[in-house]
Amino acid sequence: MTTHTGHTNAIRASRVIGTDVFNTQGEKIGVIEDVMLEKTSNGIMFAVIGFGGFLGIGEKYHAIPWSVLDYEKSRAGYVVPFSQDQLKAAPAYSIEELTGGDGTSARDASFDYYKVTPYWY
Amino acid sequence: MTTHTGHTNAIRASRVIGTDVFNTQGEKIGVIEDVMLEKTSNGIMFAVIGFGGFLGIGEKYHAIPWSVLDYEKSRAGYVVPFSQDQLKAAPAYSIEELTGGDGTSARDASFDYYKVTPYWY
Repeated sequence: MTTHTGHTNAIRASRVIGTDVFNTQGEKIGVIEDVMLEKTSNGIMFAVIGFGGFLGIGEKYHAIPWSVLDYEKSRAGYVVPFSQDQLKAAPAYSIEELTGGDGTSARDASFDYYKVTPYWY
Repeated sequence: MTTHTGHTNAIRASRVIGTDVFNTQGEKIGVIEDVMLEKTSNGIMFAVIGFGGFLGIGEKYHAIPWSVLDYEKSRAGYVVPFSQDQLKAAPAYSIEELTGGDGTSARDASFDYYKVTPYWY
């Protein structure tokens, strides 16, 4: 349950929400607005990334696979191997589209864009 | 990605936090204070259950396996197969004990009490 550096491997969801997301060049490219959980398994589906506003009707978010997020203590944020342009060009959906019963296509398109195979396949 | 009733299987962590927890007799036995996520896998470790206060220093919480929580729409809360007495007698720890690098024993003792094998073993 600990990483090779001896740090714990456990993190509270409430601490993840609101955390900044940076690209590998150190530019802030977004904020973790929420974490999507699977009800009937113990899987973390993806992080909901936005640009720092409040979750609002009509606002669009990115579904970034949890496995892509790499926490970097010095930046107090997550680092992802995407540029801001890549993130802006990524599929974006409303919260309703990402959580709804027909959200499969939205989630699939996102994982496809980031070239990550969803764990649920 | 949908349940047999056609509902989505995805839920936002921010919606889970603050949700009431009931026993099978319909008595409210606690509140989900947080959800513990595993950083280096995509696993939801457990729900942090308390009695509705704020997360505070010295306060003790229960680590209930995610798989035990059953959402019941009519109650707008989660139902677990424990009595309030069982929950009160369950191992309880501070947030620091549950997240810390030496949190393994706290987590193990909790899962042992609820008779659930952690997915990480």
